[in-house]
Amino acid sequence: MMRKQLQAKIVLLFCALCWAFTAPAQLHRYVDPLIGSEGLGNVFIGPSCPYGMVKPGPDNDVASNSGYAADPAKPIYGFSQLHVSGTGGGPKYGNVSVMPFSGDLESIEQESVKSDEQVELGYYSVVLQKWGIQTEITTSDRAAFYHFAYQPEKAKAIKIDLGKFLGEPAIANPDAREAQQFVGSEIEIVSETEVRGYTRIRGGWNNGSAYTVYFSAVFDQPFTGFATWKNGELFPGQKMQIDSGEKTGALLSFGSSSDDLQLKIGISFLSPMKARANIDNEIPHWNFNQTLDENREKWESNFARVEVDPDASDELKTMFYTGLYHTMLMPVDRTGENPNWENKGPYYDDFYAIWDTYRSSSPLITLLTPSRQIDIVNAMLQIYKRDGYLPEARSGNCNGRTQGGSNAEVVIADAFVKGLQGINYKLALEAMLKDATVPPGGNEEKEGRGGLTDYNRLGYVSTNFVRAGNRTLEYAYDDYCLAIVARGIKRKGEYWRFIAQADNWQNLWRDIEDHGSRGFIMPKDARGNWVDSIQCDASNGRISYIPYTPVAQDWPICVCWWCGFFYEASSWEYSLSVPHDVAKLVEKSGGKEAFRKRLDTLFDKKLYNVANEPSFLSPNLYHWIGRADLSNERIHQIIDENFNSSRSGIPGNDDSGAMSSWLAFHLIGLYPNAGQSYYLINAPYFEKTVIHQENGNDFVIQAKNFNPKNKYIQSAKLNGNDFPKAWLEHNDIVVGGTLILEMGPAPSSWGAALPPPSKSDQEL
Amino acid sequence: MMRKQLQAKIVLLFCALCWAFTAPAQLHRYVDPLIGSEGLGNVFIGPSCPYGMVKPGPDNDVASNSGYAADPAKPIYGFSQLHVSGTGGGPKYGNVSVMPFSGDLESIEQESVKSDEQVELGYYSVVLQKWGIQTEITTSDRAAFYHFAYQPEKAKAIKIDLGKFLGEPAIANPDAREAQQFVGSEIEIVSETEVRGYTRIRGGWNNGSAYTVYFSAVFDQPFTGFATWKNGELFPGQKMQIDSGEKTGALLSFGSSSDDLQLKIGISFLSPMKARANIDNEIPHWNFNQTLDENREKWESNFARVEVDPDASDELKTMFYTGLYHTMLMPVDRTGENPNWENKGPYYDDFYAIWDTYRSSSPLITLLTPSRQIDIVNAMLQIYKRDGYLPEARSGNCNGRTQGGSNAEVVIADAFVKGLQGINYKLALEAMLKDATVPPGGNEEKEGRGGLTDYNRLGYVSTNFVRAGNRTLEYAYDDYCLAIVARGIKRKGEYWRFIAQADNWQNLWRDIEDHGSRGFIMPKDARGNWVDSIQCDASNGRISYIPYTPVAQDWPICVCWWCGFFYEASSWEYSLSVPHDVAKLVEKSGGKEAFRKRLDTLFDKKLYNVANEPSFLSPNLYHWIGRADLSNERIHQIIDENFNSSRSGIPGNDDSGAMSSWLAFHLIGLYPNAGQSYYLINAPYFEKTVIHQENGNDFVIQAKNFNPKNKYIQSAKLNGNDFPKAWLEHNDIVVGGTLILEMGPAPSSWGAALPPPSKSDQEL
Repeated sequence: MMRKQLQAKIVLLFCALCWAFTAPAQLHRYVDPLIGSEGLGNVFIGPSCPYGMVKPGPDNDVASNSGYAADPAKPIYGFSQLHVSGTGGGPKYGNVSVMPFSGDLESIEQESVKSDEQVELGYYSVVLQKWGIQTEITTSDRAAFYHFAYQPEKAKAIKIDLGKFLGEPAIANPDAREAQQFVGSEIEIVSETEVRGYTRIRGGWNNGSAYTVYFSAVFDQPFTGFATWKNGELFPGQKMQIDSGEKTGALLSFGSSSDDLQLKIGISFLSPMKARANIDNEIPHWNFNQTLDENREKWESNFARVEVDPDASDELKTMFYTGLYHTMLMPVDRTGENPNWENKGPYYDDFYAIWDTYRSSSPLITLLTPSRQIDIVNAMLQIYKRDGYLPEARSGNCNGRTQGGSNAEVVIADAFVKGLQGINYKLALEAMLKDATVPPGGNEEKEGRGGLTDYNRLGYVSTNFVRAGNRTLEYAYDDYCLAIVARGIKRKGEYWRFIAQADNWQNLWRDIEDHGSRGFIMPKDARGNWVDSIQCDASNGRISYIPYTPVAQDWPICVCWWCGFFYEASSWEYSLSVPHDVAKLVEKSGGKEAFRKRLDTLFDKKLYNVANEPSFLSPNLYHWIGRADLSNERIHQIIDENFNSSRSGIPGNDDSGAMSSWLAFHLIGLYPNAGQSYYLINAPYFEKTVIHQENGNDFVIQAKNFNPKNKYIQSAKLNGNDFPKAWLEHNDIVVGGTLILEMGPAPSSWGAALPPPSKSDQEL
Repeated sequence: MMRKQLQAKIVLLFCALCWAFTAPAQLHRYVDPLIGSEGLGNVFIGPSCPYGMVKPGPDNDVASNSGYAADPAKPIYGFSQLHVSGTGGGPKYGNVSVMPFSGDLESIEQESVKSDEQVELGYYSVVLQKWGIQTEITTSDRAAFYHFAYQPEKAKAIKIDLGKFLGEPAIANPDAREAQQFVGSEIEIVSETEVRGYTRIRGGWNNGSAYTVYFSAVFDQPFTGFATWKNGELFPGQKMQIDSGEKTGALLSFGSSSDDLQLKIGISFLSPMKARANIDNEIPHWNFNQTLDENREKWESNFARVEVDPDASDELKTMFYTGLYHTMLMPVDRTGENPNWENKGPYYDDFYAIWDTYRSSSPLITLLTPSRQIDIVNAMLQIYKRDGYLPEARSGNCNGRTQGGSNAEVVIADAFVKGLQGINYKLALEAMLKDATVPPGGNEEKEGRGGLTDYNRLGYVSTNFVRAGNRTLEYAYDDYCLAIVARGIKRKGEYWRFIAQADNWQNLWRDIEDHGSRGFIMPKDARGNWVDSIQCDASNGRISYIPYTPVAQDWPICVCWWCGFFYEASSWEYSLSVPHDVAKLVEKSGGKEAFRKRLDTLFDKKLYNVANEPSFLSPNLYHWIGRADLSNERIHQIIDENFNSSRSGIPGNDDSGAMSSWLAFHLIGLYPNAGQSYYLINAPYFEKTVIHQENGNDFVIQAKNFNPKNKYIQSAKLNGNDFPKAWLEHNDIVVGGTLILEMGPAPSSWGAALPPPSKSDQEL
């Protein structure tokens, strides 16, 4: 198996020479799952299908969000079947852990340092040094495929551990915040080649209720001995460990023949038999390479939607396709696997979190595979219908948590303004109105809009509520998005109410100066008084106060991470988050020149946080003052300084692909303003990009006079006509066409005459 | 089997003669599960253990709350394993239906009219006329035991149907209110004697999320043939139907030998194997009578806590012990069977609803088996801790719905003031404070206090919210209960806040006259104006208004059942619901004489609803004006006119034993004011009652000169001392003693000098 794999790699290397001819089948080689695996990226490095339910991979750090720590000294203790990618906070999943080892069935704990790790799209391989066992993994959507090559003459054994999961509190503490908590498990030796069971876990980052991961593990050869365990005690030959709230598992021995051992693990959220059916449906054979090939074909069909310049550097192509790859890891497609209601439509889970992904991930999916985004939005509407609220974040079949707004509104508006069909927008409006009118009460950490009573009464969220600053800003934009959908489906009453509320951000706009710029979103109490200082109770246990300035961060020193005025940001960053009315923001900041200085200060004084989503649009704000050239400069500067194809090539938590999708958009010269129908045009990194749309229409972005010195767009043509705008309507892409960008060495005034839309510029 | 059973009955009849000597083992014969099975009672008629998880019984009406309709023309279509008792609204459960039949395995639908129905405690027997099959059922806590006697030479067959459940909408409507909805099912022929699987259902009365009922069905002889089905299509010989969201089941044939067939069905909420373990743990044999005996022993040990006068009529004893029986059917003990969090403490489900049961069911359990009530309260606190709110109602592992207050506060206060140990009252206060301070927002139908924002801002719930009248009244009492616990654990801040809020009922007290009485709880808008008319939109679709008077009922004609000013009641009934401050109520009604007239009017003009819980305390209110004699008259009148030992002997929905526990208390001459530490003393129906307490102390209630003419208590002695109060502290019972009631033919002034406690009489 290992040799075959190496042969395959040689063929791949050879074929790189003829890439131009066989491109559609080879884009996956530009994916490096290790980008973002070191530093802050927290990406999952194991194999997955696009939006794949099963994500098998190595676990060597129970505190790691992806299960994986780059530190080679940390031994691998198992390969579990479910992971998320790029997340922060308390880990989730890491369930149904398998571990090969050599030896007798005497010890439950088995671990080994690793060597010869090899990571490709759809493929993971490692040698467990302790026993010299090579473990290779690939996966279909709902079943993982393992190939184990043991050392000759050594006893082949496998552990299946249902007591392992990520984020377990060091000492069991059933109330530990964000920790996953063990609820129960069960294991059954069904035959001499199959083991079934489940593990049930609650908690984790989203403080979710219990979820149950069912599995079926099928081997290509019979085991010759086994022991099951419960609560640490081994029971040789006992076929069942029935759920009594204890940790269970099994050790299996396969003799010491020289044959490699293969294992398929099906996963289901319905039952162990459904898990078995998922194997039988997806991998009805023992051909590892066939499953690997099918995995890659699925990715290819997604990647092939974007054909970039074949002459671009491998580095750039790797950054781009890995960006697409990361974007398409989540949310996960669990259609037919929902244990909570009828499986009659698409079901997606692991929205983790929409606060992260609405800005660029959703728009990227919409641009490349709108059919996928339609399914995702319909799944969100089903979640609203059955669970009562749209997800803001969701994992393990349970809504939670909210970081700021009810940003599902943006996702829905984005789908609506981009013309996605097959979505019940009347139902969608109902769901958005629930967010906007029904306070979540005790569940405000879980869903809906916390502080809504304030917001709807005062027009802002007062300091009576945590995260009042970003909540106010985000609700205002969410209201804008709601209004746009309401207008589109002729619901005028709702339109007029919410388009007015879209200005609510101005209620927290305080005309103060900081670092030479004027006007910031600042805290205000429920009586309407500005609040100058914020409680800080870290000084010897006594309550103290710190002055609250636009650069202040009350969290996590003064108050808890989730308890500051802004979530994970300062006022300098968040005060620019008015994506629907940048023109008004410019005006309130003192006009174009003042705004330019403000943006320059943001970036030059390092007040901008490249790793945080609220700042995703900030480098593009120069567009609204007619300075697309400055947007270009900033964006290229940010990318060049922070992103690359190395293992630490993502400057912050990838957040389910949020960072990666931001990068991917900018590499092709487009950036969406999610919830609105246009893209900002920037200088691309590729001389040519072709978007092969699902509707059959190609859209070409072509940079003329493309070279490193010609950094600036001088002019543009769309389908041969002068195109003086630095922004492009989604529909211009949908109908197909060619956008030619004339590049040059000096800044130009291209785009200045027709800035991108703003609410206050429009006839309402 | 049938013959043996008959023999056993003869022995029982004989032994009735020697009852006095063998009483502890024979009280169950005074239980008639059919009381309340006709008319409005809605009781479950099949066997159950005390608080038993499994309640197997016949289903012949999918719209019946208990599965059972007395109408003999309605054919039985199956025996399902889970039921509730006495409930109204949309049905719940009716899962895992089994049906014996004779014939080939060709048709899924099997039904038969019944004959020879025989119902006893722990035992149900019926003959399915179509095939002449006698079906007998008994049960342990978590496994049902069936004995089937087929006609000789006839083909013995069994159906296991996972697509059957109660309250299924006639045409599948996934949004039908209060209907149960099918989610999925699975079945597996595990061996020639065992079938396992599950059915997953959501919705029902409490609009709960999905619950999964796992089962294992084990036969005492191998089946010789089988067919499984999915979505109506039979698959002969196919061993599995894997969950794909369709209805599944199995038909099993057992040849035509003359042996009777026995079946044990274990149920679990964790897994099919746990269901099997529940059989093996509880019924490791095939002796039907042994299981029946064990069932009865469990009941006996509960019943034996109260020894009533052996010379009382069978009618009375039957009413009394059947009352205890109904009280102890729910909530159900699911300790170790919670799929949502760690099973480390007691877990109870089917609080259905506390609004019904807090008044008399919980106090009765506390009086007889305080250890049980401690477990129940601890389960409620676990529910708070893990689900975020205490239950007001709960079923299928999911909170929902609230009818009025957050009455868990009353249950907790009742436990506290009665000195129940082993409850974390600090945690309990935290849970009550959650109810009282954190609005449930979008979940106000599910838990917490709907309209709390109004209540905490205005001191009442305004007409902006439904059920504003009873919510205000109940929250005021809940606040009183919270305050009492706060005071008890030295939390003065909370005490002072909530003892003040306990007067909030007065904010809706309007000084108007109706039927000659003054002062009623009436609707008020959020600006503080009384509301004279209530929206009624039933007139040709146009919005109209009806005058809102103290006898008005806006529901269900004008507005939905849950949308009136009072839930299921008029102002005449509900305005008397101030259990913590009857003295103030008397004062506001115009004094003692006016209050007496008011009560007389309530009963004489039929403004009192015997079948509704808000009126449970009303006949006892005469106690507070020194007229215990009038309480006695009313209570005896109500019982004599409405309750008896016939099948329609319960005048309304038994509501999980609420009505039955009200009756049982009054039969022994005590009635609790739940949440407070005392019992009102009334003329008992039994000459002597001995409460054998768990602590070993006996408390005797002895009526002297007891005969039908001597209706009135003349005087009382407690432990030999004069006892001038018509109310008794719980602790007086706990320490043991004898209460002698001297009876006489004429009303007396006994009790008049020292009325029961009222908040406004007490030093605070």
